[in-house]
Amino acid sequence: MLGVCYYPEHWPESLWQQDAQEMRELGLSYVRLAEFAWSKMEPADGQYDFAWLDKAIQTLAAQGLKIILCTPTATPPKWLVDKYPDILPVDIHTGTTRGFGSRRHYDFSSENYYRESMRITRVMAERYADHPAVVGWQTDNEIACHDTTHSGSENARLAFQRWLENEYGDIDRLNKAWGTIFWSMEYQNFSQIDLPILTVTEAQPSHQLAYRRFSSDQVIRYHNDMIEILRELCPSHFITHNFIPMVDTQTDNFALAEKLDFACYDNYPLGRTDLFYADAGPEQFRRYMRTGHPDFSTASFDHIRGISKGNFWIMEQQPGPVNWGHHNPRPLPGMVRFWSWEAVAHGAETVCYFRWRQAAFAQEQMHAGIKRVDNSKSIAWQEVEQFRDELTATGFDLTAKVNTRVAIIMTTTNQWVTEIERQGDSYNHQQVEFEYYSALRQLGIDVDFVAIDGDFSHYSLIVSPCLPIVDDAFIQRCKDSDAHFVFGPRSGSKTHDLTFAPKLAPGLLQELISVQVASVETLRADIHEPLTLDGEVFNSNRWREELINIEGARTLATYADNTPAIVANDKVTYVATLTDMALLKTLFKSLAERLQIDVLDLPEDVRIARRGEFTLVFNYSSETRTVPAPVSAKWIMGSGDVSPYDVSIYR
Amino acid sequence: MLGVCYYPEHWPESLWQQDAQEMRELGLSYVRLAEFAWSKMEPADGQYDFAWLDKAIQTLAAQGLKIILCTPTATPPKWLVDKYPDILPVDIHTGTTRGFGSRRHYDFSSENYYRESMRITRVMAERYADHPAVVGWQTDNEIACHDTTHSGSENARLAFQRWLENEYGDIDRLNKAWGTIFWSMEYQNFSQIDLPILTVTEAQPSHQLAYRRFSSDQVIRYHNDMIEILRELCPSHFITHNFIPMVDTQTDNFALAEKLDFACYDNYPLGRTDLFYADAGPEQFRRYMRTGHPDFSTASFDHIRGISKGNFWIMEQQPGPVNWGHHNPRPLPGMVRFWSWEAVAHGAETVCYFRWRQAAFAQEQMHAGIKRVDNSKSIAWQEVEQFRDELTATGFDLTAKVNTRVAIIMTTTNQWVTEIERQGDSYNHQQVEFEYYSALRQLGIDVDFVAIDGDFSHYSLIVSPCLPIVDDAFIQRCKDSDAHFVFGPRSGSKTHDLTFAPKLAPGLLQELISVQVASVETLRADIHEPLTLDGEVFNSNRWREELINIEGARTLATYADNTPAIVANDKVTYVATLTDMALLKTLFKSLAERLQIDVLDLPEDVRIARRGEFTLVFNYSSETRTVPAPVSAKWIMGSGDVSPYDVSIYR
Amino acid sequence: MLGVCYYPEHWPESLWQQDAQEMRELGLSYVRLAEFAWSKMEPADGQYDFAWLDKAIQTLAAQGLKIILCTPTATPPKWLVDKYPDILPVDIHTGTTRGFGSRRHYDFSSENYYRESMRITRVMAERYADHPAVVGWQTDNEIACHDTTHSGSENARLAFQRWLENEYGDIDRLNKAWGTIFWSMEYQNFSQIDLPILTVTEAQPSHQLAYRRFSSDQVIRYHNDMIEILRELCPSHFITHNFIPMVDTQTDNFALAEKLDFACYDNYPLGRTDLFYADAGPEQFRRYMRTGHPDFSTASFDHIRGISKGNFWIMEQQPGPVNWGHHNPRPLPGMVRFWSWEAVAHGAETVCYFRWRQAAFAQEQMHAGIKRVDNSKSIAWQEVEQFRDELTATGFDLTAKVNTRVAIIMTTTNQWVTEIERQGDSYNHQQVEFEYYSALRQLGIDVDFVAIDGDFSHYSLIVSPCLPIVDDAFIQRCKDSDAHFVFGPRSGSKTHDLTFAPKLAPGLLQELISVQVASVETLRADIHEPLTLDGEVFNSNRWREELINIEGARTLATYADNTPAIVANDKVTYVATLTDMALLKTLFKSLAERLQIDVLDLPEDVRIARRGEFTLVFNYSSETRTVPAPVSAKWIMGSGDVSPYDVSIYR
Repeated sequence: MLGVCYYPEHWPESLWQQDAQEMRELGLSYVRLAEFAWSKMEPADGQYDFAWLDKAIQTLAAQGLKIILCTPTATPPKWLVDKYPDILPVDIHTGTTRGFGSRRHYDFSSENYYRESMRITRVMAERYADHPAVVGWQTDNEIACHDTTHSGSENARLAFQRWLENEYGDIDRLNKAWGTIFWSMEYQNFSQIDLPILTVTEAQPSHQLAYRRFSSDQVIRYHNDMIEILRELCPSHFITHNFIPMVDTQTDNFALAEKLDFACYDNYPLGRTDLFYADAGPEQFRRYMRTGHPDFSTASFDHIRGISKGNFWIMEQQPGPVNWGHHNPRPLPGMVRFWSWEAVAHGAETVCYFRWRQAAFAQEQMHAGIKRVDNSKSIAWQEVEQFRDELTATGFDLTAKVNTRVAIIMTTTNQWVTEIERQGDSYNHQQVEFEYYSALRQLGIDVDFVAIDGDFSHYSLIVSPCLPIVDDAFIQRCKDSDAHFVFGPRSGSKTHDLTFAPKLAPGLLQELISVQVASVETLRADIHEPLTLDGEVFNSNRWREELINIEGARTLATYADNTPAIVANDKVTYVATLTDMALLKTLFKSLAERLQIDVLDLPEDVRIARRGEFTLVFNYSSETRTVPAPVSAKWIMGSGDVSPYDVSIYR
Repeated sequence: MLGVCYYPEHWPESLWQQDAQEMRELGLSYVRLAEFAWSKMEPADGQYDFAWLDKAIQTLAAQGLKIILCTPTATPPKWLVDKYPDILPVDIHTGTTRGFGSRRHYDFSSENYYRESMRITRVMAERYADHPAVVGWQTDNEIACHDTTHSGSENARLAFQRWLENEYGDIDRLNKAWGTIFWSMEYQNFSQIDLPILTVTEAQPSHQLAYRRFSSDQVIRYHNDMIEILRELCPSHFITHNFIPMVDTQTDNFALAEKLDFACYDNYPLGRTDLFYADAGPEQFRRYMRTGHPDFSTASFDHIRGISKGNFWIMEQQPGPVNWGHHNPRPLPGMVRFWSWEAVAHGAETVCYFRWRQAAFAQEQMHAGIKRVDNSKSIAWQEVEQFRDELTATGFDLTAKVNTRVAIIMTTTNQWVTEIERQGDSYNHQQVEFEYYSALRQLGIDVDFVAIDGDFSHYSLIVSPCLPIVDDAFIQRCKDSDAHFVFGPRSGSKTHDLTFAPKLAPGLLQELISVQVASVETLRADIHEPLTLDGEVFNSNRWREELINIEGARTLATYADNTPAIVANDKVTYVATLTDMALLKTLFKSLAERLQIDVLDLPEDVRIARRGEFTLVFNYSSETRTVPAPVSAKWIMGSGDVSPYDVSIYR
Repeated sequence: MLGVCYYPEHWPESLWQQDAQEMRELGLSYVRLAEFAWSKMEPADGQYDFAWLDKAIQTLAAQGLKIILCTPTATPPKWLVDKYPDILPVDIHTGTTRGFGSRRHYDFSSENYYRESMRITRVMAERYADHPAVVGWQTDNEIACHDTTHSGSENARLAFQRWLENEYGDIDRLNKAWGTIFWSMEYQNFSQIDLPILTVTEAQPSHQLAYRRFSSDQVIRYHNDMIEILRELCPSHFITHNFIPMVDTQTDNFALAEKLDFACYDNYPLGRTDLFYADAGPEQFRRYMRTGHPDFSTASFDHIRGISKGNFWIMEQQPGPVNWGHHNPRPLPGMVRFWSWEAVAHGAETVCYFRWRQAAFAQEQMHAGIKRVDNSKSIAWQEVEQFRDELTATGFDLTAKVNTRVAIIMTTTNQWVTEIERQGDSYNHQQVEFEYYSALRQLGIDVDFVAIDGDFSHYSLIVSPCLPIVDDAFIQRCKDSDAHFVFGPRSGSKTHDLTFAPKLAPGLLQELISVQVASVETLRADIHEPLTLDGEVFNSNRWREELINIEGARTLATYADNTPAIVANDKVTYVATLTDMALLKTLFKSLAERLQIDVLDLPEDVRIARRGEFTLVFNYSSETRTVPAPVSAKWIMGSGDVSPYDVSIYR
């Protein structure tokens, strides 16, 4: 299904009718409304004005469009901020208050804001619970965006103290768990504990991790309570949220999505590529600047499918140049259609485009829409038409599931731990996970992302690029699984409170494979050392562990001094160093063959994805590429010779 | 005429007499005094001491020197700051108060400081109005330097609200003009509006632009009211101000200069080159590090001539190494004389050197003077002597005007818009304007800078590298002009309030040339795409617009996909992309030939400038260069074979 | 002797006994205790608990180990900070309070903290004065680390005003000395003077220098008063302090060490190399990343020997990877033994390793120890054993002195002046001093560092890479010395208050060599100009002075324009520019030969050091190197063919 994000409040009413007709003509089914419209719905304290929204919904519904409403809480109005100044969050890096004038200017620890958010949610839900055109809700908008999970406010400090008291019960337990004896940081009571910000040198890591967990919990409480109100009042509506990339939420994404019906992703391939490649040389940068990297968006799709526990939606699909990258190239012609296919290939049931018409004012006026400011049609229009027609022509089943036997374990805790205790500036958790993912994808392997306490039963290969904190339950679940596990460096190295694994890394994983990490070294990103696997020399870099006491495991790869760098037994492969894509591909290919997982020698810049009966082939290169499809392949769309930036489908 | 900046208060009185004699010997006519001497003139609140200044003036006047006095307001004394702490400005990036201990520590929105500034101005003006040696006034010093136009103070916030109320009348008009409906930023009254600083993500662009305009107006009010006092009390004196580069004032420079008799420029070629080339490679950096770039200082001269509405002065000319660049090379021998000639070639009537004697203490003790700290003569002395003698020998007419048929439209609004809405980090307004200017200069074309509402009647070619905001009056004036207009990308794209041009860019310019901008992409500075003009391939880079609906215009240049990149009709050339110097030169040469404007194929690093009857030739290269002067040229100084770093003059 | 840093409070008592036994087995003599244990010794205000410490000491003493106790003042406990919030320092760059949660969170200007620090010192000293196992004290820990010498607090401001009043007596003297007439900065009384922070543009340099001196004096007062208490109460104990690199204390290091019995150094070769080479290319970075640079640690050893006025200790020796570099490589095998030999070669009497066992929690859990977290022995264990055995086998005399005839003058004032008045961003005082030192070391010359008012009588060659501020007493002492003096650029250029030398640079040095600096230019680090010495061309770069009025001195080297760049007479060589290592080596070699100082043509990456009868040879290269030892050399350990990363000793 297709949809669009629409802001009728930005345009004269005289345009609404034509807009609705054109949406229908374009084959759209859903329209998202009211996302940032608090000041329009409640122009002054307690004075509501829903007439405009009723009319907009009515106009759209008359064309058969279904409505998704949003709680408008990402943008508290000025009168509300002035009434409760503690709504404004405090910057944890500077201690200054973050002001009104953009968006997301609220503190998850402000009880005033919590109460007001639930109030407006309730008011909206009560009004539209039974509206025949309204089918679902989006909570807030891109929660946590702009580094808003953390606040350095006095409210946050007091809430953190309460959270700690709840978590640790008595202060001695906290002192012991954190090791506050170090540097005389012992506390006598919870009310002494500050936020771990603005310290003289780095703050206590256990203290930092607790603050991350607390902040995450504050977001989740806020979000879940909002969902609960919607669920109670609108039992027939679906409830969803439009997620930003997992790496940017600083929140437990599985927990955040838990009570939703499904999760949505806001897909901006070019903006994300621009930010990720900010330090890349021009050749590397240029290569994907108008297409996005072949594995960036799909990694997010697979993430979101993981937290969604099944299929998902694209709530916002980039339709042209955006405004918020350091630089904002134009997508190559055809990429809007290409990205739409990519999303459904990875499990999207609906693709909504952001936005119907480019805004004529304010921060996003340089962000493209399906229509231009002057109401003419942008290039995206015809690409959406093409996608719509191809969906019909191929009979693509949007309810089909993605099935794969390979999963990557995902938990925000990884990111927290590696950000708090960098040990080497070249360790970038996002990049590490991405490398593992991309290596699998280059072999034509579909990948699920699964929670550390998720269901492992479907998988033959479970990969964990980084998993510092594990517990006994996890170990038991690994034992109970038939899968082979691959653990990257740092895995098992820390306790729940970010202290050192008492029996050395990989800690509890030693129950799965007998090996110890004697020491760790970190290297600058531009330094490489040899790493030999089956006589072939690859790179060991950034993070390098010294392994000792290996018992009953084979050495797969060795460092320059012939000491082991990758070891394995039947259950587990332990990779003790960061390395290059070539080694990861070699390793995964070998494992996949052993585990009888299909592997394809895909040409460069070609990717495949399987959903239901269909296999979709995506060519990110500027040349026609031939995909090594099976002889039995029946081509539903295109052929095995895939044109540049084109999509083929076979069954 | 020649002059010097002198600080008698820094030296024992015993030196003054010799100083005055030597100034006369060097051929100086003017001495600027009292620039930062408030604490010396008013050592405590209301206790004045002018005896030292009377004596200094008397000593100088006895040698026939004419005195320019300064209002000392760039440096409020400590007792005044302690009496009125709201004098201190607030940093808009951090919210911290900017303290006492250097200079320009005042807030243009402090009514206390406004009142005190006018008081000291009045006291000085009354005292020296009838002094026979005093001929003129400099207001303040380098107004706006050190990013002092903007303050984040409570005073600024309240003044901004009053300014907005005055500008928009009622709050609904503001809401509509800015599009505050976006992100629920609607206001109910003016007192709700904060400064657009320290927001969670980027502040509303209309809000930001209003704040820039307000801040500019605050500077102008302060400055104009000071001028008015001087004008009233000293009707026989000239009033001027020493400007820093236009790009650094963050103020409407034409408005700031409007009530002056003429404008002055403080010319520091090496410091400016060091800052501009901070990111350049060593070869590019080295090339001009001891001469300055051939077009940097002259661009400022031409700017200042524009706001001066005629000739101007150099109030401070760099005489040797300065102290404030990241690195401070020594000028090549002869450059002080070279720069002095360059200034008069572009319209300077007087060149004053900064400073008479290098300071023995404080922040600028490493800044060279004509004399050294030990009172010996620096290398600048003999260069000033040479320049003085050459002025006489050539009979150079310092009252002559610069006449040209080519102008660039200059408005600070360009800079504000492109800083507020970058869209691509590689768009640098200063660089964009500089590229257009430099291309013209390399063709031997003299350039005026003219206000958007200035007099267009002299010009055959009017160039606008960037002009996002235009109005109907401007369009009418273009229509009324016989000139050909060249507009760079972004022109006409925005409304007065920095919203999107309703009929797409180039907005109102479509009345002059029928074309629309369908989309914009921005690229990283190191990425280039082909741009073909007359079969020759140049670069398109940084900012690239897609043009559609071209009616009645010719396509001059095309992108790689053969779509139009530069289009023109008889009235207008619209350049839809940033590009390289080679294309700009090719374009301007072709236009100039068509418009019968003289073009010269100047050798590399050679520039010419025409003033009155004279044409001056400047050789910035390390080799003798032959200038393609007309056969009829009569050489007043030097010859057509110009030595390295030398100046020739012909008639 | 050997020792270790031990934190019994981090471990269960059940481990203490075994720890003590193993320490004895490893041959350790000293154990440092209680360094950060304030909250353990005084868990609440006035409630002391020393039982654990008594027991730990007793356990260690039973194995014959001698105890060094620390005052725990680097980490005030939370209850104390809450009682006296003014303990927390204020960041001078942001004005924000630096919070509790790491270490060194105290302000040297807090009288509350001063009093509490002396109290806990007194309590500890009284308790352990007569304990038979306790032999000495370490004051605080790494004083000034984490930029804590400076605070921007109100207490600091008031103390600064008192300091100024004491220093200058009356305000007019200060005004005159600083040149506050510049920019109207004149003061009427001391209470008007702010800290020179957060100013609009750079603060007055004299003001800044006074603030640096004041801050240094605050540290010294605090430290000296602590020493006095210990001295009074524990007359039989030695008192020492563990210094960080001199460049990081921002304090007069000679004054700070003056009242100690000897100084200690905390030696972390890899962390320091990582930071120093942060901007180096990968080849340069890789070369020493696992060994440290051959001259980094030894420069610090020689510094510390200078402030120690004789031999010194290593209080903390890196035993493996640390946690605080940007990247933290593992030392090459053997480097712990290598570094230990290097320390004693340069005058260490005792080497203590940090730490006994890697911490299981908190900020330093990734910092290696002699033992690992799980109590197994790390690689350092066997290296300490080897070093212990070699010390015995060679009969190395740890009381022997280092004797050399070459000294470098060291004063923190150099650093302050060049940081305050950079003039060129490429001037880095640490690097400049290091270049001079390294050139000498590469010639096999041992180097002392001597205070500006130290004893010059032992030296034939005294080198001053940078010495802007000199006084008459210094000049007289130079005259009285038989040594030849080498002065680098900037020497003598400033007065005591950081104003310009009235008779131009090199100021008072003109009494030793008649030359004047007419002007200075600074260049970007990547720009080089020719410098010719004896027909060979080297580089002049970064800082270049123009010399005039040379009388009675020879020109040794010239710039590209044939003007003098290095001049000399029998007493003094004046180097007017920064240059490259090759020139410095050529210059020093020539001088050493003339002064009959032994010079060796050492192979690349080989260094020698002489102590007592022994000459030690260190090979930092990955290849065996042959040292040009005299034929008469008697090899005590190894031979003249030194293996990679190995040490040889001859007599």
